Amino acid sequence: MPEIYDVIVIGAGPAGMTTSLYAARSNLKVLLLEQGAPGGQMNNTAEIENYPGFASIMGPELSLKMYEPLTKFGVESVYGIVQQIKINKDYKTVVTEDKTYIAKTIVIATGAIHKRLKVPGETEYTGRGVSYCAICDGAFFRDKKLIVVGGGDSAVEEAIFLTRFASQVTIIHRRNSLRAQKIIQNHAFANPKIKFLWHTTVEEIQGDERSVNQVRVKNKQNHTLSTISCRGVFIYIGVNPHSEPFLKLGITDQNGWIKTDAQMKTNIPGIFAIGDVREKTLRQITTAVGEGAIAAQQVYLYLQKTET
Amino acid sequence: MPEIYDVIVIGAGPAGMTTSLYAARSNLKVLLLEQGAPGGQMNNTAEIENYPGFASIMGPELSLKMYEPLTKFGVESVYGIVQQIKINKDYKTVVTEDKTYIAKTIVIATGAIHKRLKVPGETEYTGRGVSYCAICDGAFFRDKKLIVVGGGDSAVEEAIFLTRFASQVTIIHRRNSLRAQKIIQNHAFANPKIKFLWHTTVEEIQGDERSVNQVRVKNKQNHTLSTISCRGVFIYIGVNPHSEPFLKLGITDQNGWIKTDAQMKTNIPGIFAIGDVREKTLRQITTAVGEGAIAAQQVYLYLQKTET
Repeated sequence: MPEIYDVIVIGAGPAGMTTSLYAARSNLKVLLLEQGAPGGQMNNTAEIENYPGFASIMGPELSLKMYEPLTKFGVESVYGIVQQIKINKDYKTVVTEDKTYIAKTIVIATGAIHKRLKVPGETEYTGRGVSYCAICDGAFFRDKKLIVVGGGDSAVEEAIFLTRFASQVTIIHRRNSLRAQKIIQNHAFANPKIKFLWHTTVEEIQGDERSVNQVRVKNKQNHTLSTISCRGVFIYIGVNPHSEPFLKLGITDQNGWIKTDAQMKTNIPGIFAIGDVREKTLRQITTAVGEGAIAAQQVYLYLQKTET
Repeated sequence: MPEIYDVIVIGAGPAGMTTSLYAARSNLKVLLLEQGAPGGQMNNTAEIENYPGFASIMGPELSLKMYEPLTKFGVESVYGIVQQIKINKDYKTVVTEDKTYIAKTIVIATGAIHKRLKVPGETEYTGRGVSYCAICDGAFFRDKKLIVVGGGDSAVEEAIFLTRFASQVTIIHRRNSLRAQKIIQNHAFANPKIKFLWHTTVEEIQGDERSVNQVRVKNKQNHTLSTISCRGVFIYIGVNPHSEPFLKLGITDQNGWIKTDAQMKTNIPGIFAIGDVREKTLRQITTAVGEGAIAAQQVYLYLQKTET
């Protein structure tokens, strides 16, 4: 008979680590499954200024600080790429590439992935000028020139937000019109700090050792190349939930985000979802840890109810 | 004409400080009103082990770490005891004992207060054996004897939770029966680690320099005094929201907790509530910071909508 965990937490970003911490401090038997380094997207983040308690901290450092105490409280951490979850009568089974784990409850905290442009310089300058989160990083670019790539709601809304800091924001879009809602478009067109470059793609992000200083762009109509100086490039060409292994469970919306109530419950009893993979409007470290705490409490209450 | 703030945040606990941080980093003009030291209930907390990023930190130290960066981003902090909020057409007015402030939006983050027993030793040993939060502090008492004071749902539920750690939990109640729901009572009666002392009140909490080691109790029927050895005393005799100044606004439930939706909106446009003062099931630093971030985003979106 294999070991039966009280809870398997899938994903060791801030949400999953917080659930693991709370559950372990409630004396539950916790398995934390992760397919990369603990920390999730924090590992791709340079300076973090909006996690209270730290005036400023590097993402990988905060990841480690969140991860280290887990062992002390008995959280068992293993590497594993989850392929599917099976629901049995009393237990849930998590199937990874090479192993199978059994638990009474599951907390899904697999996060989301921002679509990449896949151009030279993008990875190199992530956290040093390239960003996927205006609310996180906008304040670093006071009086600087910025680029926003994309044409949907997020791109245009965040371009507007960035004009609170930037001296100028240029929206670069491969088509000649925006996909964003009309009212958002109108705000952007009326904003004197926002410029548009239509029919244009970013070909390369360039800079010096410290940070981005320009992008090379191509006009898709006349195929001319040019460069635009800037200190930051905000890429908003889409974000995908990391929910492929769970799509068959019927707990996701049409875009793959996992639907929960305010208690982080999915529509399957004993399965919870937290953090960026959830259908919600704000994806931050702060919201991730809050949801992690709530899910752990709900796991405890679920076990109380089913075991007595 | 007095200064008009984008947002006035009332209360500088973790929720209010997070909203202030996020709002200021969105370049909003923020006033943070507080009637005590920044940190709220964290200031009455000794060791905190469940705020991710810190394996262990003292409450007052975490309070300072959260507070210090606010000035850098331009948050204006003032002392003030809020007496009421007035709603005008375009603005909200916050009236304190000696001044009046005007803002476009208000975030209420005034917290809650655990009822005290008001016996000798209670204040002295708070954070050194006396606690009002089992989920926060239970894990500090592995294999120790604990006292829980109270007879309602919270007292009995948390006594059950504490048996995950404690060698024995004694529920001390001044009446001869519990107020808790029958199903919760039954779980407690069936739990071999839980004992009951009826018709009994705690008269004094005693200990050495480091921590609690016994309570003096009185039997209300025969007036005999006795002592019970223990390492922790969890007091669950009620918790009150800090919402007196807002009761007339019609945003509270029958017990004074402020009702909001998942976006922290009350039923008055432009007034938000976050943290312990909200009607909700889990009150933690983690949930407070999550709600603080959400409220700041909603303040920004509200201003965007009303100003264009």
